Amino acid sequence: MAGNSFGHLFKITTFGESHGKAIGVIIDGCPPNIDIDEEFIQSELDKRKPGQSKITTQRKESDVAQILSGVFEGKSTGTPIAILIPNEDQRSKDYSHISDKYRPSHADYTYQKKYGIRDFRGGGRSSARETAARVAAGAVAKMFLKSQGIAIFAHVSAVGTLESPNLDFSDLENLLDLREANIARCADPATANEMIALIDRIRKDGDTIGGKISTVVRHVPVGLGEPVFDKLHADLAKAMMSINAVHGFEYGSGFIGASMRGSEHNDIFIKEGDRISTRTNFSGGIQGGISNGMDITFRTAFKPVATIMRDQETINDAGDITSISGKGRHDPCVVSRAVIIVEAMTAIVLADHFLRFKAYKDEQ
Amino acid sequence: MAGNSFGHLFKITTFGESHGKAIGVIIDGCPPNIDIDEEFIQSELDKRKPGQSKITTQRKESDVAQILSGVFEGKSTGTPIAILIPNEDQRSKDYSHISDKYRPSHADYTYQKKYGIRDFRGGGRSSARETAARVAAGAVAKMFLKSQGIAIFAHVSAVGTLESPNLDFSDLENLLDLREANIARCADPATANEMIALIDRIRKDGDTIGGKISTVVRHVPVGLGEPVFDKLHADLAKAMMSINAVHGFEYGSGFIGASMRGSEHNDIFIKEGDRISTRTNFSGGIQGGISNGMDITFRTAFKPVATIMRDQETINDAGDITSISGKGRHDPCVVSRAVIIVEAMTAIVLADHFLRFKAYKDEQ
Amino acid sequence: MAGNSFGHLFKITTFGESHGKAIGVIIDGCPPNIDIDEEFIQSELDKRKPGQSKITTQRKESDVAQILSGVFEGKSTGTPIAILIPNEDQRSKDYSHISDKYRPSHADYTYQKKYGIRDFRGGGRSSARETAARVAAGAVAKMFLKSQGIAIFAHVSAVGTLESPNLDFSDLENLLDLREANIARCADPATANEMIALIDRIRKDGDTIGGKISTVVRHVPVGLGEPVFDKLHADLAKAMMSINAVHGFEYGSGFIGASMRGSEHNDIFIKEGDRISTRTNFSGGIQGGISNGMDITFRTAFKPVATIMRDQETINDAGDITSISGKGRHDPCVVSRAVIIVEAMTAIVLADHFLRFKAYKDEQ
Amino acid sequence: MAGNSFGHLFKITTFGESHGKAIGVIIDGCPPNIDIDEEFIQSELDKRKPGQSKITTQRKESDVAQILSGVFEGKSTGTPIAILIPNEDQRSKDYSHISDKYRPSHADYTYQKKYGIRDFRGGGRSSARETAARVAAGAVAKMFLKSQGIAIFAHVSAVGTLESPNLDFSDLENLLDLREANIARCADPATANEMIALIDRIRKDGDTIGGKISTVVRHVPVGLGEPVFDKLHADLAKAMMSINAVHGFEYGSGFIGASMRGSEHNDIFIKEGDRISTRTNFSGGIQGGISNGMDITFRTAFKPVATIMRDQETINDAGDITSISGKGRHDPCVVSRAVIIVEAMTAIVLADHFLRFKAYKDEQ
Repeated sequence: MAGNSFGHLFKITTFGESHGKAIGVIIDGCPPNIDIDEEFIQSELDKRKPGQSKITTQRKESDVAQILSGVFEGKSTGTPIAILIPNEDQRSKDYSHISDKYRPSHADYTYQKKYGIRDFRGGGRSSARETAARVAAGAVAKMFLKSQGIAIFAHVSAVGTLESPNLDFSDLENLLDLREANIARCADPATANEMIALIDRIRKDGDTIGGKISTVVRHVPVGLGEPVFDKLHADLAKAMMSINAVHGFEYGSGFIGASMRGSEHNDIFIKEGDRISTRTNFSGGIQGGISNGMDITFRTAFKPVATIMRDQETINDAGDITSISGKGRHDPCVVSRAVIIVEAMTAIVLADHFLRFKAYKDEQ
Repeated sequence: MAGNSFGHLFKITTFGESHGKAIGVIIDGCPPNIDIDEEFIQSELDKRKPGQSKITTQRKESDVAQILSGVFEGKSTGTPIAILIPNEDQRSKDYSHISDKYRPSHADYTYQKKYGIRDFRGGGRSSARETAARVAAGAVAKMFLKSQGIAIFAHVSAVGTLESPNLDFSDLENLLDLREANIARCADPATANEMIALIDRIRKDGDTIGGKISTVVRHVPVGLGEPVFDKLHADLAKAMMSINAVHGFEYGSGFIGASMRGSEHNDIFIKEGDRISTRTNFSGGIQGGISNGMDITFRTAFKPVATIMRDQETINDAGDITSISGKGRHDPCVVSRAVIIVEAMTAIVLADHFLRFKAYKDEQ
Repeated sequence: MAGNSFGHLFKITTFGESHGKAIGVIIDGCPPNIDIDEEFIQSELDKRKPGQSKITTQRKESDVAQILSGVFEGKSTGTPIAILIPNEDQRSKDYSHISDKYRPSHADYTYQKKYGIRDFRGGGRSSARETAARVAAGAVAKMFLKSQGIAIFAHVSAVGTLESPNLDFSDLENLLDLREANIARCADPATANEMIALIDRIRKDGDTIGGKISTVVRHVPVGLGEPVFDKLHADLAKAMMSINAVHGFEYGSGFIGASMRGSEHNDIFIKEGDRISTRTNFSGGIQGGISNGMDITFRTAFKPVATIMRDQETINDAGDITSISGKGRHDPCVVSRAVIIVEAMTAIVLADHFLRFKAYKDEQ
Repeated sequence: MAGNSFGHLFKITTFGESHGKAIGVIIDGCPPNIDIDEEFIQSELDKRKPGQSKITTQRKESDVAQILSGVFEGKSTGTPIAILIPNEDQRSKDYSHISDKYRPSHADYTYQKKYGIRDFRGGGRSSARETAARVAAGAVAKMFLKSQGIAIFAHVSAVGTLESPNLDFSDLENLLDLREANIARCADPATANEMIALIDRIRKDGDTIGGKISTVVRHVPVGLGEPVFDKLHADLAKAMMSINAVHGFEYGSGFIGASMRGSEHNDIFIKEGDRISTRTNFSGGIQGGISNGMDITFRTAFKPVATIMRDQETINDAGDITSISGKGRHDPCVVSRAVIIVEAMTAIVLADHFLRFKAYKDEQ
């Protein structure tokens, strides 16, 4: 229970520190006979990797994934799929100046107190570099979900107070094209331009800024999610909150729902041909913790990156006051890279619940 | 993995339907030699039970807890503590009119499609009545945490758009008194009065309204929470999102944090005597998923109750359009009763992580 | 992780002490729409209950099972099935003389040292009375397996050195009749008579004796069991070893297999019509941890009951030498009652692996 | 739940196929600040590796372990320890002749039916090569247990019907020297010589033979093991039965216990100075599933290796009768290599239960 696994039937376990030899993941429970496209895994990693644009960290990592097991002649075999991502660009000396200092709002202090030891280089295990392993696993989950007709899409819906208008999710292919056409990864082109300009200003200030990501999952069968504790949205919440820097999660009506009345919030059922749906979707596609066939929608809030290129006061191991300044290469805003991490964790939750659904499904 | 258990070392498993013989919980992993005060368990249940005030449902359930096992001569023995709460006031015929109808924004439709069968009386397993079992287990968790000096406090911080001002959490005893002095369970007396008036108006309209609950956990040692997936706030998020009607979770700076800059969001470490703390607490007492000794703070958003005392259009099992009207006895706003559920689930998460912390603690 | 749950998808959690208010079980993960026959559950409990014949303990417990949840109109609903068995015949004063003494080869000493507290009455949680809860859960598992065509049979194959000849398992109905026709629960009538006589002699000596139980599972589809750690026979071994007094487990060729050569031990595949089977079955129906469609066969060894009606030297809480004599009502040999416990745990393992199999099954 | 993880607090997850790129293991939950000696890990792997003597397979694998994460400056950090063992000697063409044939008493048939696909080269995931990953993890577990004073020793106690006399376990260092002084890994030198001669004859016959391994764990504190399902011996049984070719497990008196009487089997408590122990140890150091401080003793039975150097009749994918002959390089008897696997799995079970013990330990 040391916390490095996620999922039950589609279960991932990640390992690795930012400046160690490698990071990686074992996916245990991928069904057999799924087409595993290594190029797709790599293309997903490329969307997360550092150094991809002027608004991300300039740290260079090629993040090349190697599949070590579980795939035979291009197909999953039902055995564990291990994926290795060697670390390359380890400027560990960038971190020697912080070996005995606790960076504000980082995990240095809590790791040191919890374990009595830490690999301080680049944040070690607490570095967001760990999420590359999740992206690789998420790519496998997406390939499984694709075989079941389920599609996931996320994009940057806010940077600071700059918010994207709501989008029509009926054509995810098109939204994906719009999103990938800009480095902010916002599917609304006009907002994307403003976001890029804002992040660039923040970067020049040596500062950082938070943001939000909106996600939709489409074509989910009715019935995914378990009652009571393992509600589909409860597992999505845990998955999202486990991503570095995430401070908030809401689905469907979310926090706005708290100020609504039942008479306006209730989603009225309607019937179109044989298909039952709801007129509105304040439920975010989930009722009683179980998918109802409507679009699953949720939002995730990211705090600003803690490493800033400015002098900050802090304390050291000895408990003395000292100062620290950001010297490494860091992101002024993580959300444009985090989009792919959000999609990956979403895919892993859906794959897990799809298998759980299958286990209990009444076939009569 | 059918989802009716929560926690790993301090693990609860609940059972029971709204209109069956009983509901209950097994607590597996309560440490031995903890004083188990049955009156305290009952007093916690009394705070959640229906019929306690004019702004809650008038359904009457005495909700009397019986401890069946795991306690010997007033102390926990380390074996499973089973607690039974018989169902009493089962006006099941109130529900006969909905046996083949799907109530809007309830779990009727999803349960029926998932399982092909459901106990439709009072929502069956999807009823919030299940949370009484959590409250009983939470009371046991609180008794364990109390033995470790950890205290939990929650109150209603918003009903609709009516928000409580921020409170000073330094004297939880006093806040608890203020909260319990009014039926809204808001610790700010002036706001509480406005809330009560608002809920009463909503009730007379036959409508319902959402709200928010704010929680603080104090005196948590540094080191609770596991890195990566089982971050302390990720488990709190899952716990909260597993409560009926919760649509959002945020900790520390939360959604507001997404619009802040790193230079204002970073919590600067300070030293007071031997104690290390932070000047601000946007981190909400958790850094890198691990408690840092500061107050743990989070907020939870509840949607309005789906059952309203008005006619609504809906569909039935056959897929035909029909109409439905709320006939049972329901809450115009759940948050004043949900406060104790939020505290219970918080206590269970903390107890679980406390034991995990103890397992790995470096004693050198 | 306090150890009172078993299984993953078909998961049971038991609670209760020998002389507390009740024992019971929650079954989480029983598929929906299974016919739940309460009389069958009761008939299974009656086969385990004390006082059923002259060769068992004379303690009287009616062991009446009450289903509290998870069943609606005679069918499982997919929600947790809670079953309660109140304790009745609690001659707790039978145990007052041992409140501060450690009975030899019982769990008194280890529980006291582990927990610092114990319910000493009748062994408390360590009493084999806990297995009644398993039998109730096993009855539910059997009903699920029956719906899938899978059948389980166990009988007493040895008492002391008295061994039953090997049986032909082709007609389980008939074997069950033969087994239930005698109080030893050995399906070979001649051996059964000898066993009864032997146990009766042992009983009159104030002594106890060990024995063995042989089990077969028939009509299991090919594919149950997971590779590596969760091999089907590994989970069966854990299930059997978790039963009170079990000291050994072997499947297929078992310990005899250790003295065989590969050329005689290998099970040669044969084809009869469309069905692939093996000429011999030293593999016990499991290859690589996965069922191969042949009969699954295993044996379980039970040590003699520790409570004997004789004076024994022992120590007390203070560490002083004292003596103890068996005063309660105990079994001279447990295997005739344990047959039904072995079947129950077997059913639970098979139900669990059946659901796991279904989750991953390649349907292409 | 696909079965490739073992343990709860000290949890290992293995991956890899016999003829893929690599095998490996993630250890999640190793406590921090344990000295990690890479040479010790390698020396353990060397005891398991193929080609080490004339009585093992001549397949050559250097089995060099690389630690990828979780260790910093020679000490565990509390984060996942990933260990990679690249595959080297992949004579995959040795297996092309069996790509569509099911080898008798192997897992070819069951894997194919379960998954619809398999990596047939060298048995793929079902190959005992997977156990090298367990040995690496076991070495880490041993280093943790050593820091707590706990020692483990296993040796070959039988090959075929050739049995070692019982040993005095009071000097494990000496026994280890005796065991490592011969290639059979039996700590009784005279028996070892006979075993070597026997295995050599079997090998020349192109046949294989089974055997047994006896294990002792010393200096275990009182209190390890959980009541009911996660009894210490139940988890040991599962661990042992999960090792390839194991068909039987017994602890303490084992199968012999089934023929004993209570009056001879009961272990009478005695007191020597302050230490409580038992006069005999038929309980095998475990009472009520919990360690009692005495030596933990158990035995494991291995069937003969299924691959023999002779022609055997079998069937192919199409269900036609065909014949097969062993062509690769295989072991005539696995027990001398399996000793180290048994020790590794024992260490993992003990480490896991030690941490569980620590979590609940009453410190008052």
